[in-house]
Amino acid sequence: MRDFPKPSAQALVPFVSVAEMMAITHRIGLERALIDLTDRIETDFRRWPRFDKVARVASHSAIGVIELMPTSDGDRYAFKYVNGHPANTRAGLQTVTAFGVLSQVATGYPLMVAEMTLLTALRTAATSAMATRALATPGASVLALIGNGAQAEFQALALKAVCGIDTVRLYDLDPAATAKCARNLADSGLTVIPCASAESAIEGAQVVTTCTADKRNATVLHDNMIGAGVHINAIGGDCPGKTELAPAIVARARTFVEFEPQTRIEGEIQQMPADHPVTELWQVLSGAAPGRQSSRDVTLFDGVGFAIEDFSALCWLADQLGPDAPRLDMIADPDDPRDLYGMLMRAC
Amino acid sequence: MRDFPKPSAQALVPFVSVAEMMAITHRIGLERALIDLTDRIETDFRRWPRFDKVARVASHSAIGVIELMPTSDGDRYAFKYVNGHPANTRAGLQTVTAFGVLSQVATGYPLMVAEMTLLTALRTAATSAMATRALATPGASVLALIGNGAQAEFQALALKAVCGIDTVRLYDLDPAATAKCARNLADSGLTVIPCASAESAIEGAQVVTTCTADKRNATVLHDNMIGAGVHINAIGGDCPGKTELAPAIVARARTFVEFEPQTRIEGEIQQMPADHPVTELWQVLSGAAPGRQSSRDVTLFDGVGFAIEDFSALCWLADQLGPDAPRLDMIADPDDPRDLYGMLMRAC
Repeated sequence: MRDFPKPSAQALVPFVSVAEMMAITHRIGLERALIDLTDRIETDFRRWPRFDKVARVASHSAIGVIELMPTSDGDRYAFKYVNGHPANTRAGLQTVTAFGVLSQVATGYPLMVAEMTLLTALRTAATSAMATRALATPGASVLALIGNGAQAEFQALALKAVCGIDTVRLYDLDPAATAKCARNLADSGLTVIPCASAESAIEGAQVVTTCTADKRNATVLHDNMIGAGVHINAIGGDCPGKTELAPAIVARARTFVEFEPQTRIEGEIQQMPADHPVTELWQVLSGAAPGRQSSRDVTLFDGVGFAIEDFSALCWLADQLGPDAPRLDMIADPDDPRDLYGMLMRAC
Repeated sequence: MRDFPKPSAQALVPFVSVAEMMAITHRIGLERALIDLTDRIETDFRRWPRFDKVARVASHSAIGVIELMPTSDGDRYAFKYVNGHPANTRAGLQTVTAFGVLSQVATGYPLMVAEMTLLTALRTAATSAMATRALATPGASVLALIGNGAQAEFQALALKAVCGIDTVRLYDLDPAATAKCARNLADSGLTVIPCASAESAIEGAQVVTTCTADKRNATVLHDNMIGAGVHINAIGGDCPGKTELAPAIVARARTFVEFEPQTRIEGEIQQMPADHPVTELWQVLSGAAPGRQSSRDVTLFDGVGFAIEDFSALCWLADQLGPDAPRLDMIADPDDPRDLYGMLMRAC
């Protein structure tokens, strides 16, 4: 390879690697980052009508799905690439990996490429915290965490940092997952209580988060397990054929969703009639619709993950980058924009 | 930043920068690369029913568009990010920039991230060459190239290398663009004839490629300019409100398209009734439908660019990478896939 003309600044796109994402999280502090992300996502949810909203573009195969999740507020554009392959863990791979891009709408040029496996874990936890802050009974302090996989610790810490949760009761079908989660949270300041059953885990919990990974219509929570006043974040049911709650719980809960057309297909409410009443969460956050209406309401955040959360997270991440962030030579940038061929030929 | 655990091979995604894309093109040779790409795209067009096909996912703003173009053959998945911002050239930026990702369907893990501004220029030219090889009159040797911007030289060289074109007649509204193109093609082996009008450029041409950039319904070719037997590649008309041909030409031409639902919205045929007859090009290439039926037919390839062409191009590019290709630390890869939090914390 001979010498190439040096790319201009326009051609170089800041890149946030996994290592850099971890370094940024540690520099800010994980709980601080979760608080900031929660506020950032809430700010964007409050200006919901400003965003382009489309259901994610999914490519399904027999064993998984690859999705693209784009959105724009007219000033910036973001999309996330994310896969879901439950069998990956058996091969030592992640079930979910993700990366994303933030761009400038005015030029179409990318502003940043970033890993989003970690960032998605953070924004998913922040979104649960945002919903819990808006919907749980005041003073809620005990969280039951059903499903103790990759998302569990982030849920616990976000609900601690944002909502004042002080006790976490853990349950997973696999005791090793619970042991891992308990070990990871040992020094978190939370009181951590591993439980031998889901029934035991939900005892005394005002907030329940389900974040299991099985790709099927499972029943992680039965109807008789959920008493008056509980808030549920149902996070794990997030694609067609993958749910976590008994339909009777959904039937009696006040149900809140991100983007209704997507959640009808992917959320817990795929089990319900098409006219099952739901409220989009942004309406509660912006004051346009009521949230919890009594201390005895069961509230359900039927979270499936939506592109605006990724947009908020990428905008937050871009704000953390310094002028010396690593950059990728990703955009061809000829001196004369009409002379792409000349640029190629002068490089030989 | 302290020491991080070293990412595993799974976490590192080969990255083809602009510089690397240019180096690969020069190593192979531009005309050889165009021939190989043409054959690669044709091979994939012949197995068209194997692919997932969706219209591209576009985010329109007042001054441009950002699009995602995904497809999959069940074994590999690809998407391209591409923008179109005609006003960018006034700011010294590219009208169109692009990058893309190739992934493994079985795991959802990315196999390669690549610049695609240059690669799109190559695959667009290769696609025109594929259509011209299938549809033009045998022995066609003279090409009229209307629009002498960033795509022009690639069109000329692909039609030379693949279809035996020996003479190129150039016209652009801007004489500076024609001069740039003529200069770039001076040593190409083509006879290059700059012309003062579109009428003059098409004299004696058996093949006409229009690749203008104006985002409006322009009339680059009038009805009386196109005689019997001509093959047209209409490349520049590729989004709603952007066309290049007089409707009367489309009305009397045998029209061939990539993916009909997309071309109805974006191509020259957006000017025609919804039932204007068209043939998908893959049917001609696979022998399922006739192409040119007489030496007097006007044939029109109403090209708008389709995701399968990008898929083919990314697969071709991936085959060119050596074991020492640069890699990005883009996929979080904890030792225990359920322990993303532990990976993050061990990095501090």
